[in-house]
Amino acid sequence: SRSYTVTLLPGDGIGPEVISVAKNALQLVASQEGIEFKFKEMPVGGAALDLTGVPLPEETLSAAKDSDAVLLGAIGGYKWDNNEKHLKPETGLLQLRAGLKVFANLRPATVLPQLVDASTLKKEVADGVDLMVVRELTGGIYFGKPRGFGTNENGEEIGFNTEVYATHEIDRIARVAFETAKKRRGKLCSVDKANVLEASMLWRKRVTELASEYPDVELSHMYVDNAAMQLIRNPKQFDTIVTNNIFGDILSDEASMITGSIGMLASASLGESGPGLFEPIHGSAPDIAGQDKANPLATVLSAAMLLKYGLGEEKAAQRIEAAVLDTLERGFRTGDIYSAGLKLVGCKEMGEEVLKSI
Amino acid sequence: SRSYTVTLLPGDGIGPEVISVAKNALQLVASQEGIEFKFKEMPVGGAALDLTGVPLPEETLSAAKDSDAVLLGAIGGYKWDNNEKHLKPETGLLQLRAGLKVFANLRPATVLPQLVDASTLKKEVADGVDLMVVRELTGGIYFGKPRGFGTNENGEEIGFNTEVYATHEIDRIARVAFETAKKRRGKLCSVDKANVLEASMLWRKRVTELASEYPDVELSHMYVDNAAMQLIRNPKQFDTIVTNNIFGDILSDEASMITGSIGMLASASLGESGPGLFEPIHGSAPDIAGQDKANPLATVLSAAMLLKYGLGEEKAAQRIEAAVLDTLERGFRTGDIYSAGLKLVGCKEMGEEVLKSI
Ligand SMILES: CC(C)[C@H](C(=O)O)[C@@H](O)C(=O)O
Ligand SMILES: CC(C)[C@H](C(=O)O)[C@@H](O)C(=O)O
Repeated sequence: SRSYTVTLLPGDGIGPEVISVAKNALQLVASQEGIEFKFKEMPVGGAALDLTGVPLPEETLSAAKDSDAVLLGAIGGYKWDNNEKHLKPETGLLQLRAGLKVFANLRPATVLPQLVDASTLKKEVADGVDLMVVRELTGGIYFGKPRGFGTNENGEEIGFNTEVYATHEIDRIARVAFETAKKRRGKLCSVDKANVLEASMLWRKRVTELASEYPDVELSHMYVDNAAMQLIRNPKQFDTIVTNNIFGDILSDEASMITGSIGMLASASLGESGPGLFEPIHGSAPDIAGQDKANPLATVLSAAMLLKYGLGEEKAAQRIEAAVLDTLERGFRTGDIYSAGLKLVGCKEMGEEVLKSI
Repeated sequence: SRSYTVTLLPGDGIGPEVISVAKNALQLVASQEGIEFKFKEMPVGGAALDLTGVPLPEETLSAAKDSDAVLLGAIGGYKWDNNEKHLKPETGLLQLRAGLKVFANLRPATVLPQLVDASTLKKEVADGVDLMVVRELTGGIYFGKPRGFGTNENGEEIGFNTEVYATHEIDRIARVAFETAKKRRGKLCSVDKANVLEASMLWRKRVTELASEYPDVELSHMYVDNAAMQLIRNPKQFDTIVTNNIFGDILSDEASMITGSIGMLASASLGESGPGLFEPIHGSAPDIAGQDKANPLATVLSAAMLLKYGLGEEKAAQRIEAAVLDTLERGFRTGDIYSAGLKLVGCKEMGEEVLKSI
């Protein structure tokens, strides 16, 4: 039987609750598909800070590196919000992404027919939206140097960061995006601010040059401010979007809200080789943590992405995806996606219903 | 009678058409309110490039500086899209903002009852939205140095920009935002990415410190990715938003699309002293330029902001605002805001109807 090591990083807030559900789902499909999982649970984020004093302990990073795939819950919480930069939970997540070299973040935003009413967009606008944001994840202003605090020529305090991209960073994320678009509907929209920023001008130049290698993919360019509008005006115009780290952060969250159900959205972060990192798009939701209210489906769907993109276990991935749809079809809803007439359940019960569907 | 010099910068695309309508509106309210306008029309953007070889001729900037207020149409077009940076129409606009030192960009996004159906958001979500984005306009990554192209330690080409804020830049925009919130519903949301960027950490620190001077204003903070979501999930939660140049570019465009009618939205850019710059939020729309299809109301409303914020002529401003509402009430619509049963008109006719309403 095929055997894989999976590092589980529950993290903070609702993280442990949703990871526990996803783990059960992985275990059940494993038994059905002749897969064997070795799970290793490690601390990250605020949980790691409290335990070890740093947001990404070395043991956690090396366990993650040594595994076949990594499944993360969520990180962060009010408690650590005023920490200095190197002691923020978020810094642990950024170190993990950098350490695993997962430069390509795939964030699908699909409006499920069962949930179209959860969107704040009109039904005819939201219905049928199926787009993928390919976000560059280990470069740009998140990691660029120089960065920090200092004083300017007037002796005033300044805070500064560097947005920087090198050609190979642009090329490799663009290739992932072209390949992704090719497997989807063949349309790629590259989003930048090339009318103002040099980093974006280089981005646009490289993406345009690479397009000749992908004759089946129709490439377009859009300024980020316009993209933020078009996502609301007519999200169905998009198939695959590729963009830098910070624009991808903003636009993928915006796109996810279009589906009306951020509690449903998964993501995969992939490198050239080595384990991928899989996590729900939502945050740690400290306000509902520990109350059995969280929607575990985003993490369950992240586990499906782990099977598909991380391990090449397509069939097991499909089993999970089908089970999620079936559970929704049977009317089960956590609070975030509940509407009148359906069955309101907590995180655990939702997990049990998914297992039944599997 | 009170006399003012107003520099008109029609710019590119639909710019000349909408400026001509706004000029007529200004002239009519002037005669009613005992105001005298001297208009001076100057080239900017692509029009200036074609005429003089630069996107902001010195004569244009000095005319703008010497006037009491500046009204801009729109700039940019496909024709100049591949120009080098210093020969882009956009560069002319940035030079104009910097030259006039208009660091505070006010962008109201209001859903008018007459146009609520134009929004792609559900009626109950869009109805009653009335928010103001206060965007920092002369700092941050738009202007930060160093910037440009270079090679990294591997000899690879890089493109880079600097996001940088000094305390006085944050303080002065924060003060404008607090004052704005005070005159509105007393709620200010500062948007940043302080969990990742040092420039944002300083931003948050200063804004938080200044809050003590504005006890009537309730201050909150939000990460930019979350703000992009919340604007769609529940835009009514916002009163005044303050944010940096690039986040403001993205979020104000997103907010404007929530109203469903970007052809209706005005903006004011103000400095410590000197003339303000007033312009519609929409672009130059080269695809419909010269076809008498543009919606002139955003520019007419920008003229109203010019009267109010630029010249302190509140009464004249209200006349124009009331006339725009009355024109909509009477059923006139340009194509972008048209719906069945109403009266479809072109740019000129819309202008004439506004004059009648005034
Ligand atoms: C928590 C934060 C550092 C992170 C990011 O900005 O990348 C999050 O918003 C995300 O999108 O995964
Ligand atoms: C044209 C462009 C330079 C400009 C900006 O990014 O500021 C525009 O998008 C705006 O928002 O006024």
